[in-house]
Amino acid sequence: MKARIDVMLRDGVLDPQGKAIHQALKHLGFDTVQEVRQGKVIEIELAESSHEQASARLKEMAEKLLANLVIENYRVTLQD
Amino acid sequence: MKARIDVMLRDGVLDPQGKAIHQALKHLGFDTVQEVRQGKVIEIELAESSHEQASARLKEMAEKLLANLVIENYRVTLQD
Repeated sequence: MKARIDVMLRDGVLDPQGKAIHQALKHLGFDTVQEVRQGKVIEIELAESSHEQASARLKEMAEKLLANLVIENYRVTLQD
Repeated sequence: MKARIDVMLRDGVLDPQGKAIHQALKHLGFDTVQEVRQGKVIEIELAESSHEQASARLKEMAEKLLANLVIENYRVTLQD
């Protein structure tokens, strides 16, 4: 089973990488860009048979290791 | 218009961050994990009216700035 976990900084937490990308895009002439946020995506191949079990495991992985819940949000998506 | 660009290392390109996460998950007891790849996600708020134009601009941003096409793939997703 394939899954992805997106980890993004929470709204209100300063995102210097996003700001740097925004500036760089402006300098390249992309003037319709209004906001940029940068995050991580972790793609995981998982040997679980049930979707519920996989979801529960992925949530646990996100909360134990992948996301810092003080400043980050995460979102789990199962792909098949 | 909201969009996201995922940037992942191409298959076959070594992904040390993904490997480190895989090891750490194993040590935490997540033994059903088979593969992990880590990438970047860039969320962009864009003032474009047409979907086609937005897609074209985002493709350009990915190829000019966000992805290194020698070692990375990208995927553009429009969210509304």
